[in-house]
Amino acid sequence: MNKIELTSIGIIKTPFNKPQGMPIQPTGAKGIKGEIHLKDKYVEGLKDLDEFSHIILIYYLHLTKGNALQVKPFMDNKPHGVFATRSPKRPNNIGLSTVKLESIDGNIIHISNIDVVDGTPLLDIKPYVPQLFEDTLDNDIKIGWFDNNYNKAKNQKADGRFVE
Amino acid sequence: MNKIELTSIGIIKTPFNKPQGMPIQPTGAKGIKGEIHLKDKYVEGLKDLDEFSHIILIYYLHLTKGNALQVKPFMDNKPHGVFATRSPKRPNNIGLSTVKLESIDGNIIHISNIDVVDGTPLLDIKPYVPQLFEDTLDNDIKIGWFDNNYNKAKNQKADGRFVE
Repeated sequence: MNKIELTSIGIIKTPFNKPQGMPIQPTGAKGIKGEIHLKDKYVEGLKDLDEFSHIILIYYLHLTKGNALQVKPFMDNKPHGVFATRSPKRPNNIGLSTVKLESIDGNIIHISNIDVVDGTPLLDIKPYVPQLFEDTLDNDIKIGWFDNNYNKAKNQKADGRFVE
Repeated sequence: MNKIELTSIGIIKTPFNKPQGMPIQPTGAKGIKGEIHLKDKYVEGLKDLDEFSHIILIYYLHLTKGNALQVKPFMDNKPHGVFATRSPKRPNNIGLSTVKLESIDGNIIHISNIDVVDGTPLLDIKPYVPQLFEDTLDNDIKIGWFDNNYNKAKNQKADGRFVE
């Protein structure tokens, strides 16, 4: 199986009309409000989702131009393998964010802490349930080159490097 | 944008040759060893990944038959909206697991705590960096119907309900 065809289940609406100037991770997007406009035919799949405080969004980074195996990420001056970064310029341009679920009104899901550009096509919603994996994490989580850099994600904004 | 074409970047090899009897989440797969066989052309993208202890795998649930908007998950007797579950029978059959990275040898990535069936096509690898989102989580994480059920994921095994 090589080619896999997926479909957009809806659109993520945010205040960011272009990547330039956007927060680069949820930690830099605290309090930023957005909405998911789910296609009507999927609304039945939202049953009981309103009992969760946080959801995982899997989406398609539709503005990314091409891909690269080594990239210089926003938070470092050195190139790294793309799989060791959260750069959008990946072999498959899939993005992943855990956001806060505020409320659901029909096919509109109100969210906050959202770090994607307006109009991003959504692929999936999963409930955030840390109990399903946290006990498998070691106490010593190693985060490679992020170790001296992750604090930059609080304030650093995106530029156009991955969409031009 | 409705149809989105992605490509398998490699295969996840595990001891589970069919869904029936498999662990249903990483918490039930502690110590289970697996390998990612990355396509050779993507190996350059692994640079510096070996400095991370845990990685996030995004993969295609290729054995799932069809999809359903309401499902009865392994851990409960009541149906829930599919987006409020981790059921594989989703509009896009995308799966997500955080696993331990043991070592990398060329295009082979040795992992543990893996809860997928042998031969699962891989779509993406991202480094697990909790610092990028954990400060946006409330202290009070609500996990809906999982609240009384998540412990079942430690021992419960999958049956064939989503592949038959």
